[in-house]
Amino acid sequence: MLDIVIPIYDDFTALDAVGPYEVLSRVGRVRFVGVQPGPVVTDNGMLTVLAEASLADAAAPDVVVVPGGVGTRALTTDAVWLDWLRGVHATSTWTTSVCTGSLLLGAAGILDGLRATSHWLELETLRRYGAEPTGQRVVEQGKVITAAGVSAGIDMALTLAARLVGDETAKAIQLAIEYDPQPPFDAGSVQKSDPAVVERIRGAVAAREAASRERAGV
Amino acid sequence: MLDIVIPIYDDFTALDAVGPYEVLSRVGRVRFVGVQPGPVVTDNGMLTVLAEASLADAAAPDVVVVPGGVGTRALTTDAVWLDWLRGVHATSTWTTSVCTGSLLLGAAGILDGLRATSHWLELETLRRYGAEPTGQRVVEQGKVITAAGVSAGIDMALTLAARLVGDETAKAIQLAIEYDPQPPFDAGSVQKSDPAVVERIRGAVAAREAASRERAGV
Repeated sequence: MLDIVIPIYDDFTALDAVGPYEVLSRVGRVRFVGVQPGPVVTDNGMLTVLAEASLADAAAPDVVVVPGGVGTRALTTDAVWLDWLRGVHATSTWTTSVCTGSLLLGAAGILDGLRATSHWLELETLRRYGAEPTGQRVVEQGKVITAAGVSAGIDMALTLAARLVGDETAKAIQLAIEYDPQPPFDAGSVQKSDPAVVERIRGAVAAREAASRERAGV
Repeated sequence: MLDIVIPIYDDFTALDAVGPYEVLSRVGRVRFVGVQPGPVVTDNGMLTVLAEASLADAAAPDVVVVPGGVGTRALTTDAVWLDWLRGVHATSTWTTSVCTGSLLLGAAGILDGLRATSHWLELETLRRYGAEPTGQRVVEQGKVITAAGVSAGIDMALTLAARLVGDETAKAIQLAIEYDPQPPFDAGSVQKSDPAVVERIRGAVAAREAASRERAGV
């Protein structure tokens, strides 16, 4: 049974983690892990998820999926997290991220010299870690896969499922979760959006980020 | 602040709930509630989410979103759940479901005479409750909105967000969660799938459903 680990931390974004979980729970055993086992609160404070084990209990997963969220910013200088990421990446089959989870991979040195993606708001931040940002939704570089913002984790996980268990099973999973998306608007990327809306989101996320840093004491 | 309630129960499907939560947390206060406050385990046993309050503490939400999952089957004869659903529906602005959450709305009598949808595997079951099944991804009938399987909750929630706070804010939310879906396969509906795959999923879900009924003791 594949050991698939999703590390979570306070102020992570729930859909970043639950999208891939919903796909990957059909190909292996998914575990949510934290600095320590126990409750972890999402970025808006409205949902609490239990980490079933500690990072230390998940030292050598086959697959790691790092979700994003404003909580990542405090962790980019956290030795416990960065050491853990370097450790699991040394033996993983696949090291992946969704949204700003890629900032953690970057801070751990995993994206140096690679093309990568992140939430559109943080794409340029990837350069700080030696990565070359790309606007693609899912970016595969050797055993490292990064996905764009939040909902892109579903597309990434289906791509990963195809690598792990083949296209036919990945398609069956897509049908099981009835992933035949029909968004009511065509407004899901910066290219398709009004600049005023882009700035509005930038402001809202900056405020959330500052609040998260304050909660984390960094 | 809009009071948006997502009732959860053992063996619910996480993405059914977390997709809409991720969208609707940007338009109001989302609360996960259960028969009682505390841990609730998802359908595959790999994720535990905390219900922050009880059904009784959420007697008059503005919006209710009922997620699906094999755990619904035991609840279609559970008076506590059906009475609660009838009660909240009496005063809600919107009563909605994702996936087999519609079976609970149906069992509570809320879909009688309405067009509705569900996970493709359970579409015909809706007839039992006087509803007319439709293959549409999101079905709006007065203040009742039902969505198709699992991932359809994201499309439903964006539709609902547009009704609650207008198209422009709904589009901004879509951009915030970068919902510009690019599935690696075009395999997310029965019409696009191999009949053998459909039967394989039918078998897997039937097994999960039987296990869930056994856990629930019904």
